[in-house]
Parts: sequence; structure tokens; C-alpha cells
Amino acid sequence: MNTIEAIRQRHSYRGRYDGAPVPREDLLRILEAGLAAPSGCNKQTTSLIAVDEPETLRRLHGVIVPDVAATAPAMICVLTRRVCAYRDRCFAVQDYAAAIENMLLAIVELGYASCWIEGHITDEDRICDRMAELLGVPREYELVAFLPVGRALDAAAPVGKLPFAERAWFNTFGAGA
Amino acid sequence: MNTIEAIRQRHSYRGRYDGAPVPREDLLRILEAGLAAPSGCNKQTTSLIAVDEPETLRRLHGVIVPDVAATAPAMICVLTRRVCAYRDRCFAVQDYAAAIENMLLAIVELGYASCWIEGHITDEDRICDRMAELLGVPREYELVAFLPVGRALDAAAPVGKLPFAERAWFNTFGAGA
Repeated sequence: MNTIEAIRQRHSYRGRYDGAPVPREDLLRILEAGLAAPSGCNKQTTSLIAVDEPETLRRLHGVIVPDVAATAPAMICVLTRRVCAYRDRCFAVQDYAAAIENMLLAIVELGYASCWIEGHITDEDRICDRMAELLGVPREYELVAFLPVGRALDAAAPVGKLPFAERAWFNTFGAGA
Repeated sequence: MNTIEAIRQRHSYRGRYDGAPVPREDLLRILEAGLAAPSGCNKQTTSLIAVDEPETLRRLHGVIVPDVAATAPAMICVLTRRVCAYRDRCFAVQDYAAAIENMLLAIVELGYASCWIEGHITDEDRICDRMAELLGVPREYELVAFLPVGRALDAAAPVGKLPFAERAWFNTFGAGA
């Protein structure tokens, strides 16, 4: 699948997954895609944990309340270190977002479905901190998002997007091609 | 080119560009790739301006001090609106970072080079605000980054990355495959 096709096909999947395990080889390719993303001043602030052990998945889903993507046979947890790239400038959010987008596209290419789950676990109840504890994550890292990985059982539910002409222009704000 | 290949080939290009114009059709595909990125709660906070008029490019490079990527025949300026996705949660940075990563991959697939330029123009001297003014960007939008687009004249200068085992693990922080 070419890149632009994968970019078009990617969507946030919120349906059920079949239970078939994701081969380690595929998880490795997804992790490598994430690590290949650029980072501000090459600080490589993003780290990743792929989870495919059923017992570990069960314990993680035990703290995700309300639970989401519980049928996915694997998940990738995204960690960040909020270090400065230079002076007081920190690009950790940009760094992990680029890594996540790379992984979502690799997931599409390998025939799996996923969804970027961030707000739900980083809210005031800090589900992310309990997930990090279960995974043995040291305090200098923060778990900020996870991506379920598995084969979709349900159809895609595409979201509506604003027309191109309301979001992109040539040479001047608001101008057409 | 498949997606994982594009992800591997992408790198931050800081060399000279040849001056050949980038066809509008290619710029459109790059913009569409950016707009296809996910956004928190589908708020679509990212907007884009592709610049290919030589006079507009010349004026933009007049405020980029010190100047970078001045030989690129096109650039894409990335705008954001820092609106909340829900309550007090804003995912605008994640949104534009995912859009930028999509565009960088589309740029690789189409045979061009680029570089994510953000810190240089959003620093205390706020070069970004002068660029926004030149492009007629309204106050509710913020120009946060630009991507030069063109054919590379020089060889890639790959950056060193930490080994996989220092950034990605299975099931437990620090654990091997």
C-alpha cells in the first residue's frame, strides 16, 4: 500500500477486534515505525511498550474506566520524557504525536485497526499513571497514550471533515488554488 | 513506495534545493495528506497555506532570520487554532504534529525533500507572527511551523538514533522481545 493510500485509509476504529494474536514481527515493525519519527533537536523523547501478554492486557484494562478497546489482542503504550530540546523549549508533545501518526499508518499498512487514545487516560483521574505503574515505568517517563492493535470485526465509521477550501489555501489565507 | 519504506526514508533535509517549481497537483496531494490526519475529538484545529509564488516566498524569507531553506521553490505553512476539544483539554499541538508527519511522508513518496521547521520561527522573536501577517492570517490562528518542499540537490545527512532496545520494550518497561 502506498503512503498516501494509507493516510487516506487511516481512521479511528472504535469497534470490536477479533482475538487473534498480533505476531511479534508485526509489533516490531510498528514500534520501529514509531521510533523512526523525527523529534525536536533529535532528543528522542518518545519511548514505547508493546503489550501482548493476555494477563498484562487484562490488568491494564482493569484500570481503564470506562474500558475501551478491551477486545484488542495487543496495545502499544506511548511514553514521553518532557525534557527541553534547548533552553526552555520542549517538543515532547510534537515528538510523540509524530511517532503515534507513524505507528497508525504502519498499522493500516499491516492490515490492522487502531485508535489514538489519549484524553481518556490522561484526564484528572490519571488512568495513565496506574497503567505506567503496572508496566514498571520509572517516574521520569509519563505514559500519555495507547494504541490498541488487532483485526477489525466491524465496519469503519468515518467522521465528517470540513471541506478542503475551509482548511487549506494557496499563497494567502482564504485564497483558492 | 509503501508506508513503512517512506517512514524509514524520511529525514530532516537541511541542504540546497533545485529551483524547479513543485506542480500544484503535488502540493494539493501534500495538503490533503495533512488534512487527513486525526485530531482530538475531530476538532480539525490545523489549517495549511501552500506558498509557491516567488514574490510571496521572497517576502517570507525576508523575515526568517537567520534564513533557512531559502532555495526551496515551495513551502507549506502550518496554522493552528488552540481551541479546547472538551472542557479544558486542548490537543492542538498533537493535531498539527500528526498533520505535519503525514505531509512529510507524502513529500517523501512524491520524491521531494523537507524539514520540520518550528522552534526557529516560534522563538521569542516570533518570526511566525510576521510570516502570518504577510499571509493575511487572522488573529484566531497561529502560524506554528513551515515545511519547505522541493527536490534535494545534496545528499542526506542521517542523524544518529538510540538503539531500539533503549527506547522500546515488550510488556514491561526495559524488557526485551
